[in-house]
Amino acid sequence: MTQYDPNNIFNKIIAGEIPSHKVYEDDDTFAFMDVMPESDGHCLVIPKTGSRNLLDAAPMTLGGLIVVTQKIAVAVKKAFNADGIIIRQFNEEPAGQTVFHLHFHIIPRYEGVPLKRHTGEMADHELLATHAEKIRNAL
Amino acid sequence: MTQYDPNNIFNKIIAGEIPSHKVYEDDDTFAFMDVMPESDGHCLVIPKTGSRNLLDAAPMTLGGLIVVTQKIAVAVKKAFNADGIIIRQFNEEPAGQTVFHLHFHIIPRYEGVPLKRHTGEMADHELLATHAEKIRNAL
Repeated sequence: MTQYDPNNIFNKIIAGEIPSHKVYEDDDTFAFMDVMPESDGHCLVIPKTGSRNLLDAAPMTLGGLIVVTQKIAVAVKKAFNADGIIIRQFNEEPAGQTVFHLHFHIIPRYEGVPLKRHTGEMADHELLATHAEKIRNAL
Repeated sequence: MTQYDPNNIFNKIIAGEIPSHKVYEDDDTFAFMDVMPESDGHCLVIPKTGSRNLLDAAPMTLGGLIVVTQKIAVAVKKAFNADGIIIRQFNEEPAGQTVFHLHFHIIPRYEGVPLKRHTGEMADHELLATHAEKIRNAL
């Protein structure tokens, strides 16, 4: 297993070196909008303690992270009146991982609305800001 | 949110009323092979305490469950020499949930091998038995 490299975009988001649409933050956790959402309300939850992915995370970190993920998933469902929620987490590149700092995806599903593909195109930042606010208000 | 209904297939698997290819069991958790695997080694991890999905699970249950999921994911990767692992969890039918007892999917990915679709066809039980044994041996 390759070691964790702190020089990654999510670690810079935690440090505030790269801006993000923040949804939630506590001592151990940071959550923010995915800039290439597959559906409205798609956000990411990450631990402040770095690990490459789920496979090398400290069990304590992981246990805390999933509980915060649950809290935010409930808020996202409420904020967007979503019909369902997918929780997804990728480990290593052949599984779809592109940023090597552990993260859980929270992806709302809406009846009859297919997921958008990751086209590499960023969503409108003003829209993402309003979505982040909606989730913060539902927390 | 609809209440948890204990009359579901996973609860019967825990009780031993329906057979399964068991991978792991402790006081709180049960893990077994998915009978319609999307790839070789695809298994499921469930808590013995029933909840409909992640949204209504007790935080303690969830925290313990993800740590066991990690343990088994590491063993699956080793047992099958997988190139990556997807962790997936569905909440409510529009998100893809079909059995309403909280479960995490552990889905190995192999370079250049697409995932199989859920066709409704069951995998060969002798093959699943050997796969379960491989994972148990790697734990």
